[in-house]
Amino acid sequence: MLDFETKVFKKEKIKLAGTEEYVVQGGRDKFHLLPKAFEGIKQIGVIGWSSQGPAQAQNLRDSLEGTDIKVKVGLRAGSKSMEKARAAGFTEENGTLGEMMEVIKESDLLILLIADSAQAQLYKEIFAALKSGATLGLSHGFLIGYLESIGEKLPSHINIVGVCPKGMGPSVRRLYEQGKEVNGAGINSSFAVVQDIDGRATDIALGWAVAIGAPYVFATTLEMEYKSDIYGERGILLGAVHGIVESLYRWYTDKGMDEKEAFKHTVETITGPISSTISKKGIKALYESFNGEDKKTFQKAYSAAYGPLFEILLECYEEVASGNEIRSVIMAGERLKRFPFRTIDNTKMWKVGEEVRKERNENEIPLDPYTAGVYVAGIIAQVDVLREKGHAYSEIVNESIIEAVDSLNPYMHYKGVAFMVDNCSTTARLGARKWAPRFDYNLWQNTYPQSETGNIDEKLISDFEKHPVHEALAVLSKYRPPVDIVVLG
Amino acid sequence: MLDFETKVFKKEKIKLAGTEEYVVQGGRDKFHLLPKAFEGIKQIGVIGWSSQGPAQAQNLRDSLEGTDIKVKVGLRAGSKSMEKARAAGFTEENGTLGEMMEVIKESDLLILLIADSAQAQLYKEIFAALKSGATLGLSHGFLIGYLESIGEKLPSHINIVGVCPKGMGPSVRRLYEQGKEVNGAGINSSFAVVQDIDGRATDIALGWAVAIGAPYVFATTLEMEYKSDIYGERGILLGAVHGIVESLYRWYTDKGMDEKEAFKHTVETITGPISSTISKKGIKALYESFNGEDKKTFQKAYSAAYGPLFEILLECYEEVASGNEIRSVIMAGERLKRFPFRTIDNTKMWKVGEEVRKERNENEIPLDPYTAGVYVAGIIAQVDVLREKGHAYSEIVNESIIEAVDSLNPYMHYKGVAFMVDNCSTTARLGARKWAPRFDYNLWQNTYPQSETGNIDEKLISDFEKHPVHEALAVLSKYRPPVDIVVLG
Repeated sequence: MLDFETKVFKKEKIKLAGTEEYVVQGGRDKFHLLPKAFEGIKQIGVIGWSSQGPAQAQNLRDSLEGTDIKVKVGLRAGSKSMEKARAAGFTEENGTLGEMMEVIKESDLLILLIADSAQAQLYKEIFAALKSGATLGLSHGFLIGYLESIGEKLPSHINIVGVCPKGMGPSVRRLYEQGKEVNGAGINSSFAVVQDIDGRATDIALGWAVAIGAPYVFATTLEMEYKSDIYGERGILLGAVHGIVESLYRWYTDKGMDEKEAFKHTVETITGPISSTISKKGIKALYESFNGEDKKTFQKAYSAAYGPLFEILLECYEEVASGNEIRSVIMAGERLKRFPFRTIDNTKMWKVGEEVRKERNENEIPLDPYTAGVYVAGIIAQVDVLREKGHAYSEIVNESIIEAVDSLNPYMHYKGVAFMVDNCSTTARLGARKWAPRFDYNLWQNTYPQSETGNIDEKLISDFEKHPVHEALAVLSKYRPPVDIVVLG
Repeated sequence: MLDFETKVFKKEKIKLAGTEEYVVQGGRDKFHLLPKAFEGIKQIGVIGWSSQGPAQAQNLRDSLEGTDIKVKVGLRAGSKSMEKARAAGFTEENGTLGEMMEVIKESDLLILLIADSAQAQLYKEIFAALKSGATLGLSHGFLIGYLESIGEKLPSHINIVGVCPKGMGPSVRRLYEQGKEVNGAGINSSFAVVQDIDGRATDIALGWAVAIGAPYVFATTLEMEYKSDIYGERGILLGAVHGIVESLYRWYTDKGMDEKEAFKHTVETITGPISSTISKKGIKALYESFNGEDKKTFQKAYSAAYGPLFEILLECYEEVASGNEIRSVIMAGERLKRFPFRTIDNTKMWKVGEEVRKERNENEIPLDPYTAGVYVAGIIAQVDVLREKGHAYSEIVNESIIEAVDSLNPYMHYKGVAFMVDNCSTTARLGARKWAPRFDYNLWQNTYPQSETGNIDEKLISDFEKHPVHEALAVLSKYRPPVDIVVLG
């Protein structure tokens, strides 16, 4: 169990499926503690304006309103994002927008939210520019994994901490905004102290997490974080769900289902009723909502899907943990300069999806038991790989369930997969492209033909029914934001 | 240009599209040179009996008939392959079958044809067991790439050479058998000298290549070899062709084409008339056989397919060259113990394929210009990546064209993709599973929708028309086996 000492916040011990973890609860009633947590910090620099950048810069600024701590955005000179940052109120005139390296030099807490491959390219320069005694903040363990993979040491003159929201940037901002009237809406975060040179690192990290609106904060290491995070987005958060809906849509239309119906029975059912049921009542409740033939259909689909999905997920985890995936992302960064991303929404399925969303009546979206069986098998398989690899339940549940149903799926529901993918990090976009087709093929070649036999694997189903993750999810759901995310254009 | 000295064979200089290479021609009229090339070698040990093992052991034995050089097969004690080796005439009784480590200790030339991951696991033991002055033969650069990636040195007491047939084991044997009545039928090989401690390495390697029936032998390094080989099988030889036919079959049936027709217009057209035309007349001749609308259809498909295929191929090459793919294969080897390979032929498409093959009339297989455009774009993109990465034309043409049309596609034509995949190495099977879906998705999301615009990229087409590979292929076709492979059950 990871332990930590905080002089500012309240550490609580929670029990999750027979394991114990320490967490800190956030909420607006803790904002008055921020100046103490950030003692000695006059400027927080936020570098980058893609997904996490705008969300964290704005949340930090709003949470620190009335204090003398300045939040300043730093971007490359000439960056196209300058205009967007200005539109959000970060301007040169009021001293809250500047050139990246300048902001890095001035800041006491420097939150580095540029793309992973850019971090790998610029880290030497950034380390050298940071003041002695400053704190470097990362929202992702990628850089730490990269430095490890090339045998590079960390600089000794700075604190290094991580605060890693378990949701994409737009959700971090959106839920924070919605939570202005209530106490505690926001996206859960993990935090990690990589290097603490002056005893301030833990409270700076916790302060940062609370300030961006995390309802609860759990401890991890950045090594565990990057493994579960890079793996999770390649899995059920993004890659696996994409592969599942593409292949299922084909399976249903091949069987003669109308295209719009097929879209409803794949994408709509997952991002709609399946997600909201899991979000509010848990996976077990979703399962128990099916009766008779529908329950058997769920069990049949689950039985045939679990193995093929587990195999790809295990491969994916090991590719990430070995450093292969990090090397791939770095190499892809170079290729992207020559061949930028293509879009993934040119196919008929996503055109049909557009129409379906236009005509949508939320109450008429079907709850498809076959799709639910496949999707839930993906969640449980992802959880099981993480358990096998020694991750703590907070991390497992957030990376495999809460981030999906409370952050990403609502965005997919609103605008479709393309929007979601294009609002994720480059690392996630690369991962989704790489792994979705693998899930697709393994399901297509094995699960769907196999499910036609009608076999139910009693052992698998019984393991699922008594899976400890149900209890862990129930405990963590108590920390769930008190408002549902409402996605706006 | 790689140069080498041979005391036994005749070295020829050939010109390929403005470049020069040295090669050696094989053929049965060179078999009398084998005792000289193998001087000092009393026993050739062949370890392994999967794809290359049975082919090379039998060809070597047949070519060395009447000499006093013994070919002995070595297998793990209790291996299920023992029975198969005995059926091929390698028995304990006649002293040509033994336990692996024993055979390794006895042999003067030891040809190691066990799976790549097994090589990685056993190399220390094998190096230690080899006699001083023995020659270790590899048919693939994988082990060299692996040792490089972990910083391991080569042992100094042995020669190390590579002879790498540019076709799978069953083709190496089948063409050799067919060639018994003619001079020179067989599969082309590259050769490489990794370490030459006594000046014998080059002629041993060339002798080995000639003895297994290579009509011509070209020089490479095992580093270039493993890169082009692992990449090639992930590309158009296996992975890309699988992804192309899966996605095209979907595209055609989605457009309303009958399933059997769609199979004919995808798999059958590639493994039948497209392959045989390229094999006998070249790619340019295939292209020029289309007229009017058909030619435009080819150009449209080529224009839309080249980019998406090039991007995945470039990624694949860089994954191989960086060592990532080798690490993946090693990790997969461990997982395969827990989860053995699933088969890829459970889907409707391959059931339809079985029926189509049963009813096949070879003369009625359509030559589909759209499929040809996509497939040829895959070949040319693969060639272009290899040129960009500095490979020599012999290697490029063999790994991207000749191995496809003269070795693998005829097997696919005979028994379908599953048979082909299951007769390839573990490394190839893993690669096909990993990369086929990537090609599929990039084609599905980009090429097919894009081709509907009807756009023809004049620059791409003109580059294709005057591509230097046409000339290189024409030169190398002179060395083509004088008989077509006839695949038997």
